[in-house]
Amino acid sequence: MKKPWGGRFKKKTDSAMERFSASVDYDQRLYAYDIEGSIAHCKMLAKCKIIAAAESKKIVVGLNKIRKEIESGRFVFDAALEDVHMNIESRLIEIVGPVGGKLHTGRSRNDQICLDVRLYLRHETCEIQRLLQRLNRALFAQAKKTVDHIIPGYTHMQRAQPVRLAHHLLAYLEMLGRDADRLWDNLKRIDVMPLGAAALAGAGYPLDRAYVAKLLKFPEISHNSMDAVGDRDFMIEFCANASILMMHLSRFCEELVLWSASEFDFVELSDAFTTGSSIMPQKKNPDAAELTRAKTGRVYGNLVSLLALMKSLPMAYNRDLQEDKEALFDTVDTVKDCLEVFGGMIQSARFKKIPVQRLESAGFLTATEMADYLAERGVPFRQAHEITGKAVALCIESGRQSLSELSLAELKAMWPKFKADIFDYLTIEGCVDRKNVYGGTARKQVMKQIARWERKLKNN
Amino acid sequence: MKKPWGGRFKKKTDSAMERFSASVDYDQRLYAYDIEGSIAHCKMLAKCKIIAAAESKKIVVGLNKIRKEIESGRFVFDAALEDVHMNIESRLIEIVGPVGGKLHTGRSRNDQICLDVRLYLRHETCEIQRLLQRLNRALFAQAKKTVDHIIPGYTHMQRAQPVRLAHHLLAYLEMLGRDADRLWDNLKRIDVMPLGAAALAGAGYPLDRAYVAKLLKFPEISHNSMDAVGDRDFMIEFCANASILMMHLSRFCEELVLWSASEFDFVELSDAFTTGSSIMPQKKNPDAAELTRAKTGRVYGNLVSLLALMKSLPMAYNRDLQEDKEALFDTVDTVKDCLEVFGGMIQSARFKKIPVQRLESAGFLTATEMADYLAERGVPFRQAHEITGKAVALCIESGRQSLSELSLAELKAMWPKFKADIFDYLTIEGCVDRKNVYGGTARKQVMKQIARWERKLKNN
Amino acid sequence: MKKPWGGRFKKKTDSAMERFSASVDYDQRLYAYDIEGSIAHCKMLAKCKIIAAAESKKIVVGLNKIRKEIESGRFVFDAALEDVHMNIESRLIEIVGPVGGKLHTGRSRNDQICLDVRLYLRHETCEIQRLLQRLNRALFAQAKKTVDHIIPGYTHMQRAQPVRLAHHLLAYLEMLGRDADRLWDNLKRIDVMPLGAAALAGAGYPLDRAYVAKLLKFPEISHNSMDAVGDRDFMIEFCANASILMMHLSRFCEELVLWSASEFDFVELSDAFTTGSSIMPQKKNPDAAELTRAKTGRVYGNLVSLLALMKSLPMAYNRDLQEDKEALFDTVDTVKDCLEVFGGMIQSARFKKIPVQRLESAGFLTATEMADYLAERGVPFRQAHEITGKAVALCIESGRQSLSELSLAELKAMWPKFKADIFDYLTIEGCVDRKNVYGGTARKQVMKQIARWERKLKNN
Amino acid sequence: MKKPWGGRFKKKTDSAMERFSASVDYDQRLYAYDIEGSIAHCKMLAKCKIIAAAESKKIVVGLNKIRKEIESGRFVFDAALEDVHMNIESRLIEIVGPVGGKLHTGRSRNDQICLDVRLYLRHETCEIQRLLQRLNRALFAQAKKTVDHIIPGYTHMQRAQPVRLAHHLLAYLEMLGRDADRLWDNLKRIDVMPLGAAALAGAGYPLDRAYVAKLLKFPEISHNSMDAVGDRDFMIEFCANASILMMHLSRFCEELVLWSASEFDFVELSDAFTTGSSIMPQKKNPDAAELTRAKTGRVYGNLVSLLALMKSLPMAYNRDLQEDKEALFDTVDTVKDCLEVFGGMIQSARFKKIPVQRLESAGFLTATEMADYLAERGVPFRQAHEITGKAVALCIESGRQSLSELSLAELKAMWPKFKADIFDYLTIEGCVDRKNVYGGTARKQVMKQIARWERKLKNN
Repeated sequence: MKKPWGGRFKKKTDSAMERFSASVDYDQRLYAYDIEGSIAHCKMLAKCKIIAAAESKKIVVGLNKIRKEIESGRFVFDAALEDVHMNIESRLIEIVGPVGGKLHTGRSRNDQICLDVRLYLRHETCEIQRLLQRLNRALFAQAKKTVDHIIPGYTHMQRAQPVRLAHHLLAYLEMLGRDADRLWDNLKRIDVMPLGAAALAGAGYPLDRAYVAKLLKFPEISHNSMDAVGDRDFMIEFCANASILMMHLSRFCEELVLWSASEFDFVELSDAFTTGSSIMPQKKNPDAAELTRAKTGRVYGNLVSLLALMKSLPMAYNRDLQEDKEALFDTVDTVKDCLEVFGGMIQSARFKKIPVQRLESAGFLTATEMADYLAERGVPFRQAHEITGKAVALCIESGRQSLSELSLAELKAMWPKFKADIFDYLTIEGCVDRKNVYGGTARKQVMKQIARWERKLKNN
Repeated sequence: MKKPWGGRFKKKTDSAMERFSASVDYDQRLYAYDIEGSIAHCKMLAKCKIIAAAESKKIVVGLNKIRKEIESGRFVFDAALEDVHMNIESRLIEIVGPVGGKLHTGRSRNDQICLDVRLYLRHETCEIQRLLQRLNRALFAQAKKTVDHIIPGYTHMQRAQPVRLAHHLLAYLEMLGRDADRLWDNLKRIDVMPLGAAALAGAGYPLDRAYVAKLLKFPEISHNSMDAVGDRDFMIEFCANASILMMHLSRFCEELVLWSASEFDFVELSDAFTTGSSIMPQKKNPDAAELTRAKTGRVYGNLVSLLALMKSLPMAYNRDLQEDKEALFDTVDTVKDCLEVFGGMIQSARFKKIPVQRLESAGFLTATEMADYLAERGVPFRQAHEITGKAVALCIESGRQSLSELSLAELKAMWPKFKADIFDYLTIEGCVDRKNVYGGTARKQVMKQIARWERKLKNN
Repeated sequence: MKKPWGGRFKKKTDSAMERFSASVDYDQRLYAYDIEGSIAHCKMLAKCKIIAAAESKKIVVGLNKIRKEIESGRFVFDAALEDVHMNIESRLIEIVGPVGGKLHTGRSRNDQICLDVRLYLRHETCEIQRLLQRLNRALFAQAKKTVDHIIPGYTHMQRAQPVRLAHHLLAYLEMLGRDADRLWDNLKRIDVMPLGAAALAGAGYPLDRAYVAKLLKFPEISHNSMDAVGDRDFMIEFCANASILMMHLSRFCEELVLWSASEFDFVELSDAFTTGSSIMPQKKNPDAAELTRAKTGRVYGNLVSLLALMKSLPMAYNRDLQEDKEALFDTVDTVKDCLEVFGGMIQSARFKKIPVQRLESAGFLTATEMADYLAERGVPFRQAHEITGKAVALCIESGRQSLSELSLAELKAMWPKFKADIFDYLTIEGCVDRKNVYGGTARKQVMKQIARWERKLKNN
Repeated sequence: MKKPWGGRFKKKTDSAMERFSASVDYDQRLYAYDIEGSIAHCKMLAKCKIIAAAESKKIVVGLNKIRKEIESGRFVFDAALEDVHMNIESRLIEIVGPVGGKLHTGRSRNDQICLDVRLYLRHETCEIQRLLQRLNRALFAQAKKTVDHIIPGYTHMQRAQPVRLAHHLLAYLEMLGRDADRLWDNLKRIDVMPLGAAALAGAGYPLDRAYVAKLLKFPEISHNSMDAVGDRDFMIEFCANASILMMHLSRFCEELVLWSASEFDFVELSDAFTTGSSIMPQKKNPDAAELTRAKTGRVYGNLVSLLALMKSLPMAYNRDLQEDKEALFDTVDTVKDCLEVFGGMIQSARFKKIPVQRLESAGFLTATEMADYLAERGVPFRQAHEITGKAVALCIESGRQSLSELSLAELKAMWPKFKADIFDYLTIEGCVDRKNVYGGTARKQVMKQIARWERKLKNN
């Protein structure tokens, strides 16, 4: 197979090298963007009279034909032609004759690949936003259903204070909401048209770059040709955002795995998102959550890979940049798969209502309440904290599981001004609803956030 | 030393454990933000009548006194008191008596540390923007001086096409400009007031969170208390942005190191930013560039450290979160140091003008021009590329260093319609100025970008 | 302050640059190794008659004096002198006069720092092995005490099969045992004497490198001077080993955190290794475990930092290499701290014995036993698995918590040949002791491993 | 498709989940190891009379048949059967009937996959060693040819001292030699037989694990069943070693890229391992070196991915562990491809001899020699360094490129005792051969190392 750049070469490429350097195995997924970009470039060349209108039409017809060939699976990609660009161009020349060679006028693979990837990532960013919305809606629906489920809130995995399950779920909505914001911010930097940079110095033809941008719906064009061919920021930023998003999912996964354990038993995941064991017949494993948690590492790895790739690369283009794509594609695929499965898992999960006795049976969830009771009555908080600590210690020593089991006499021995109203403070429900500050877990506050999210999810 | 949480504990903390878990060694740098936040919290407690106005005043006086003690170096931080918060609170109680214990009403260290770090990172983001501007101005000044310096543009470290040095330098301005944009985007997510979340469930007191936000100039307050105490996104996003910024610097460093080598000899770095060798008396080493390049790895490492830290952490607060600070502080310090030194290095660098003969002596920088010449005359680009490739091969075989050394006859043997005007295309200057597309390296385009950056740098 | 390399320099170093490039803040911790190496180098110079014996003695006396000054805290390190080497050399010349300048004959800071770090890391590797042994002994002691504690074994955090707690703890001994092996393997590559490489090309003096190696107890000397000054493999290998070690600890931490939760309640960590909450008086948090888990990310980050640092560095020495030290030091410190605290935490932990009813109350821990019962009686395993799966489903539907609650009649309805002996298979203890293959959790096998570890720990 | 674990499940698996959790797309590459392991397990079951000899034979025949079906491409893997194990087992039962279900007796997928991966990685480690040897031989051959090529040795990319090219190349042999050592060390920990661990607690059958180990040529068997199913150390260690190996290649790549630049022009890479540009006809790009350099980031990323994956995973098996394979496979493939291409690139490279004038024309390569001349004559090294620094400064000011261009009078003005013999020190060749310490770049020393490597490469 003759190389399109073979003019000055004497020996042919080593076969291991050919396989090693070919990217068509993975960059062929960009074909639609490559063709879309080529059509825009071609129309512009005609508009600028760099090629004739008739030539342009012929090329566009050829490109559309190739698109159909690829879509129908009839197109054979050839590694000897290195990449998606050369595979398409070579077929174009077969179809339309030597005039196909004019398509590459004023363009280089260096700016062409940047265009393709930007079109691709713009599209995929929108897909991810859609999947994120779907997950957020599932989460929101569960939150709405669980306003009156009370669970232990944990710090250090120790029972700390009781919270509404809806409040807990809404915390994830906040995280995922920030993920969406970051992805939109990123999109501003993806959505920039690089064509016209050519190899590195800018094209030597009077191209109308703004026209190409208009055809391809880019709000902005790149300002420096050397930057345009060497910039991979938008990918790294995407992978960093994806890493944070996956980190959020991993935290939720961890909780779903724990909550599915018989020790917690807060949730039952659907059969549709769990699997069994080949050896232990009783098992029902939270695989979707475990796999998503694991794939977090994979997305982190892709980010590191790109950062290491770019470190210390001199300008402008280096072949190293070819290695950016698999990490990016894998990140996009992984995030989409995880969001899809996670959405289904949440939507089909059944959160169980925990009986109050279970909440009171361990962890002294209402201890802060006693301290607050004292503080409200003028005891400096530090001292209030200490008195309560001693009450907890007394319960533990005497085998009582809740502060409400202490007698008023025992309490008065620790602080003489205790009155019977202390016992109102030590109920789970009261404890939750006293957290009535904006953003707190009191019913009123949780309902306020549910209303806020209802609006937010409607607007998207 | 009695622990502020010691009520229910019987045994004292192991001494290795005490050292291990104390954070005051590094979090003491947050003291000013901690005090500022405490003052705002205290004023709000009084406004809401949770504590008396007189108590509030006393506490504020005490806090201001502590600030002065720390600033003057008289304050002794004690690891047994664990962290900056407890060191300050404990001293406060010494100064103002038990009323000092009321400051912690409606607050937890969990939300307090979030506040401190957000105040800190807001401040440091602005500092970094300032240093970035300073570097950008130095870069801009160099670009303005080097519009007429022509250097070889490289791809694959092979000479590709000649470019203006200013164009090359402006590419870095584009990169650093995006870095600034990302940091501003990040700031929106830093600038959120978390106080009121208390331990995790929200405060049990009727706090006026909006008032605290107003006093501390936060445009937004957090919407979910569990998210508020567990959210470290804004730090990770910062570290990701810092990684991209350092990646840009590392690329520039690589070029400065190469350009300082006698093989390139494009720049002379100032004595003030280079050092010598303890054994080789002739050496003048580009240490500032090498160290900055190296510190890129360090910033990457901090990012990985935070991502790994957060993976799979269940809600809400876990002690793991304490380990976020050193990675963040180190990233802030490293970025600031690098920007400062880099700015000085650029400002004091002397870029050398490369004689035309050197540009013509290797690399066939004008080869694309010949291909474009052919393409403009109707030869399909692919064929034009091949003809030029053969012309290059002919030069190499016959020991000629530039395509302009070929005779018209030799050229005609390759393509009969060559005319003498081809030699106009093969001058370095002509080659550069034919790249006259927006964002290209032609003089006109470079001047346009210089004007654009002049405006941008003025507005900041 | 005059630079030792200032001969050809005209301008003085910028003050920000001076701070930026100085390493003495952190490399001063190498002083003892630096002096030890210098003494050996100096003795060798005299032995080879490169300097006079009297000169050598004078220098050695001076170096010993400096060591004492540093140990007693009287030595003032000066950043203007850049690093530990120059600080010591400069003081040496103050003490012994110009003859001190002869110490650097045949040596460069490039090979000197390699020597220092190798001496340091050899020492610290042994320290880490000692701390690892200490932890392993604590773990072993706990295993010995808990042979008859049966806990649920988990896969996917779902109860899978009952195991002996000792068996679970011994799994960590296996992991930590491999960590020790890896560190010993690493030591072979640390323990190589680099001095004599000078700047990069080898010393220009007839040095007796083997003699230096002998004085410093190195079994091997480096074979290539350029490799010697640029090799940082041994550090990266160390950091990779440290990462795996920390990963093991993080897994154990995760379990200790869970087991301390009231939902599991398998262990009580000592007050000496836990802390309380500033707001929630009942809390007893497994901070040592959480912090160790978090520090895993930090050690990972250091590894990434070094790998990124070294990528694509041309030979031989580059100033980038100075940035290797903080990541290494931090890794050493972190691993040592974690091992120390972890050892204490394990030693002082109280593992609780779980009542059989709790083991039988959830998770169908004996289900595999039923499948094995069937398989032993000729039912192909796949079919046995399915029958048992249905038995589990029947229990769940009918609200029974253990397979042993099914009647023989019910069982026969699923497989007619069930006999009463099936109920022997469904006891927890029987289930454990039937896992009597080498490496299994049966009492006999666990005792065998305890004996094996007793021998192994004695030999170290 | 009926799941092999479906007994207790009511709803069928969601289709997105089925795709998400299936591993057969990538784990099918383990088929040969899976079958090999199954045959050994099956023979052992018969030997231990757990299944009948006739049954065993039938199963082995079936397994061998499946192997042939796969090898010939006739086997259809089905994602609904999840993984390679279930695909093979399911086909086995089709072929041999229900008796095929007996193969899984005493085994779980948890230990089975560990066995497969260990067999795989043992094989691939040996393949990598072979490719490493091949590269080392190519490198050695080049070193042998270039003993008398002198190049500038660089530190900080500044010319430092002249070195033999062979010496430079031998430095890479040292690095790659350590890589081989590390991989052998790793192999000890790969080569451990895990089967018998079953799901986590050990098999419930009297298996003869030693016999399986013997059949599969494992020198050791695992000692703890819970560790056996959860241990991924050997993979991470492999990925860490691969990262260090790639780091070494990346350094060499960097140099080959630079040396191919017209500014250095030290090497010409073969057409077979370079490619051209689609737009710039003169280009000959060192793509193999650039791609290998880039793939370093990829291998780093895989390491990070595995470390993040394993962090904080509780015992014993979690589905997360399934995500280990793609990172491992990709690392193996990448390292093998890079070694193969790198070997070819080195073998076919033509290193150019650099004329002495070029060596003398810049960088003052002999400056250390002058300092050593002075030191040998009793001037303390520090002072000798300073005098030489001034001589360099004088050359620069007066436009002379080499110290040998100074007159004796000029030299005497700096140090009165200079004699004419100084000029012998200032020749390039003399300078190289005075580095005659073990490991130095003098001809004698380089020949010694060549002899050493000749022996080493013969023995492998």
